[in-house]
Amino acid sequence: MKKLTHLDEDGHPRMVNVGEKPNTNRVAVAEGVVRMSAPALARIADGTVSKGDVFSIARLAGIQGAKRTADLIPLCHPLPIDGVEVDVTPFADQCLVRIQATVRTHWRTGVEMEALMAVNAAALTIYDMVKSIDRGMSIDGVRLLEKRGGRSGTWKAK
Amino acid sequence: MKKLTHLDEDGHPRMVNVGEKPNTNRVAVAEGVVRMSAPALARIADGTVSKGDVFSIARLAGIQGAKRTADLIPLCHPLPIDGVEVDVTPFADQCLVRIQATVRTHWRTGVEMEALMAVNAAALTIYDMVKSIDRGMSIDGVRLLEKRGGRSGTWKAK
Amino acid sequence: MKKLTHLDEDGHPRMVNVGEKPNTNRVAVAEGVVRMSAPALARIADGTVSKGDVFSIARLAGIQGAKRTADLIPLCHPLPIDGVEVDVTPFADQCLVRIQATVRTHWRTGVEMEALMAVNAAALTIYDMVKSIDRGMSIDGVRLLEKRGGRSGTWKAK
Amino acid sequence: MKKLTHLDEDGHPRMVNVGEKPNTNRVAVAEGVVRMSAPALARIADGTVSKGDVFSIARLAGIQGAKRTADLIPLCHPLPIDGVEVDVTPFADQCLVRIQATVRTHWRTGVEMEALMAVNAAALTIYDMVKSIDRGMSIDGVRLLEKRGGRSGTWKAK
Amino acid sequence: MKKLTHLDEDGHPRMVNVGEKPNTNRVAVAEGVVRMSAPALARIADGTVSKGDVFSIARLAGIQGAKRTADLIPLCHPLPIDGVEVDVTPFADQCLVRIQATVRTHWRTGVEMEALMAVNAAALTIYDMVKSIDRGMSIDGVRLLEKRGGRSGTWKAK
Amino acid sequence: MKKLTHLDEDGHPRMVNVGEKPNTNRVAVAEGVVRMSAPALARIADGTVSKGDVFSIARLAGIQGAKRTADLIPLCHPLPIDGVEVDVTPFADQCLVRIQATVRTHWRTGVEMEALMAVNAAALTIYDMVKSIDRGMSIDGVRLLEKRGGRSGTWKAK
Repeated sequence: MKKLTHLDEDGHPRMVNVGEKPNTNRVAVAEGVVRMSAPALARIADGTVSKGDVFSIARLAGIQGAKRTADLIPLCHPLPIDGVEVDVTPFADQCLVRIQATVRTHWRTGVEMEALMAVNAAALTIYDMVKSIDRGMSIDGVRLLEKRGGRSGTWKAK
Repeated sequence: MKKLTHLDEDGHPRMVNVGEKPNTNRVAVAEGVVRMSAPALARIADGTVSKGDVFSIARLAGIQGAKRTADLIPLCHPLPIDGVEVDVTPFADQCLVRIQATVRTHWRTGVEMEALMAVNAAALTIYDMVKSIDRGMSIDGVRLLEKRGGRSGTWKAK
Repeated sequence: MKKLTHLDEDGHPRMVNVGEKPNTNRVAVAEGVVRMSAPALARIADGTVSKGDVFSIARLAGIQGAKRTADLIPLCHPLPIDGVEVDVTPFADQCLVRIQATVRTHWRTGVEMEALMAVNAAALTIYDMVKSIDRGMSIDGVRLLEKRGGRSGTWKAK
Repeated sequence: MKKLTHLDEDGHPRMVNVGEKPNTNRVAVAEGVVRMSAPALARIADGTVSKGDVFSIARLAGIQGAKRTADLIPLCHPLPIDGVEVDVTPFADQCLVRIQATVRTHWRTGVEMEALMAVNAAALTIYDMVKSIDRGMSIDGVRLLEKRGGRSGTWKAK
Repeated sequence: MKKLTHLDEDGHPRMVNVGEKPNTNRVAVAEGVVRMSAPALARIADGTVSKGDVFSIARLAGIQGAKRTADLIPLCHPLPIDGVEVDVTPFADQCLVRIQATVRTHWRTGVEMEALMAVNAAALTIYDMVKSIDRGMSIDGVRLLEKRGGRSGTWKAK
Repeated sequence: MKKLTHLDEDGHPRMVNVGEKPNTNRVAVAEGVVRMSAPALARIADGTVSKGDVFSIARLAGIQGAKRTADLIPLCHPLPIDGVEVDVTPFADQCLVRIQATVRTHWRTGVEMEALMAVNAAALTIYDMVKSIDRGMSIDGVRLLEKRGGRSGTWKAK
């Protein structure tokens, strides 16, 4: 079975050495949703307020969150991100907002955590902005959709 | 209908003024789960590795994440957190790890976002540590369970 | 003549002790402008791109910048900000964008630096977003307009 | 006309992908001034206090500010800075202090924002240290003087 | 015997709740030394370079370090620091530089960690600046000298 | 005699330009100890509490501290760390805990400061967790043990 690379043989945490790995182009795509009540979603998606604002702020928070990943996740390598895109799309019929983040780098390690962090930061920002209307929201389905590059190559969610 | 307090009348983002609010004791409790394959969960929960480590690191990341909330969520007020507890519990029969975070402050605004951030940081840290075994994990059901204190008083999830 | 409070009698830097000062309501208002070419301003203000976006991002950067003031200014006290508003307004006839930031706290020290930092962060963000069109922009007239609260009371720019 | 590269076709913010760009040597030079009253300038420049201190602290704040650029400017790429120099020079006859910052990197994107951030952080630090004497100071003429390297090559301010 | 307050009954880390404690004036004083070769010390203390600079930069780094304590020490409470003083004094006959830091707050928890962090940040900064001359330096005797305020009252090192 | 590279000819601080240096594999190893009373050490090392926890948290704080080095040390270059290991070992007969940190990068500058920062962050974290039992602890012997790579090659402490 594969190893938990962040723990050494004694079970102690370490930041595993990636210095021997070559730089390659890497991409990671992650997604997640914020479920909320129909009135709350209508409020942010239907133009009662300026349509773009909640989503624009969430996008921005996602991009900035990706840059802070190594600050928040203890054993994550700091790395220079080359690009981040965050899409935020409301689905009124399902009472949810879907977030998708794509992060790229040309580096020795992958950017899966950065993509997941972008989704989470965007999701929490939506929560923060809508909580005065609906405290019962939930964040669901935060997961990796795809990664490319690196020794393990391409992986796609089923 | 209630207002989106983070946007002004023109739909522009603002950090709403809380200077007039009294300091009161505030508590927020949030939860979330990380779903993973049975072998992955067995690996971190059954003693193949030192049992406490993945969960101990996740707890710590949750506590530290709560302290960084205002850095990550654009319109969130910075505030002095008085206490944070993060519980991480595996449920082998459901193939998931449950995270619960409790954050306290004596301040002018609540700590809902801090509790949610603690859950998310702990969840992402588990993801990071287990991803070499199982990339198909998902983070689900991140939500507020309860808040107490402040003008709006106590709120509990149904 | 008044003293440079950030230096002690020997000229050494210190963070001056404010522990004896009472908490009072404090407000600071600062302003500044970003000068740019007419075509560049037209581009961000006239709807060639979604009008709100550059300005909305600048507003958000200003609010977030205010929260990072004590990280950037070495001798500045960390303090819990109660509210931030940032206005960004284009003046096509003067080829400039005007930024005004208002920061509030109920605390022992003032928020002048936070208001100035908000203006600067918003201005640099506009610069960053427009620099592919016009590298010759300049940031001018960054100054305090008004402060209220604290021992020295109200001050207004002439 | 050139594009606002930080916005996609729909006007949504993104951190544009620079992964395909080659690493090249890049330099950016920026400047700015802090205008203040003659007595205030005399105070920090004429030896009433240890001459070097206010300027030394401003230099240091500028260097440190350059390192925090990607934290403050939402769509700015994080990058490893290779060198920073900040000069701070008083001009008594013009009642101003001039700041010039030079930032270097060998990387895929330029360091214009880092140089401008260094100038701004130094300027705000001077403001912070002198504000107990003169609240009417202003920061002016913050602009790029020159950039070299990268696809667009050398650019100089007129 | 006293408890390790940062661990709960099960040995899990927590940020202990201080919300019930009253705000009181608190002071902590810490010290430490950097030992180095006589030539290295002469170099920074005898005027071969501008005397104040290495020490002035170390002082500043100490002050800034105190502000980052809760970012670095996982279970440390974030708190608003009211004042920081850092003294840096060379003792040529003992081949060392002594650092002393005093931190003050009016808050619910003490500032011992902030004072120790200030000493450490100043010491590491001296190390960083002198290491091109002497890599064999050591940091020693970093300890708390005194604390005042809070429930446990005054404590002094023997 | 060698130069203080962080100061220019006028004694002004600068972040020295490393852009011309080649990337090479670099390793730095640092150590330090935390001295404490026998009862305090017994408490954290003998299983009265879950043995791994204080040391596991200290290890993690050391790893995270290494990532924050350029934030804390003013003239330190930001760089992408490739790996960090922190060992924490109690020596009951000497009443101390020994910390050793190894940091690796493939970059233009060394990681001595990162290794020393890791030791210091781990040491302060132990102090923080044990201070309710023993306030008289001290941190001693923080020094570089070895560095490899870069123009100056290998250096070992005597």
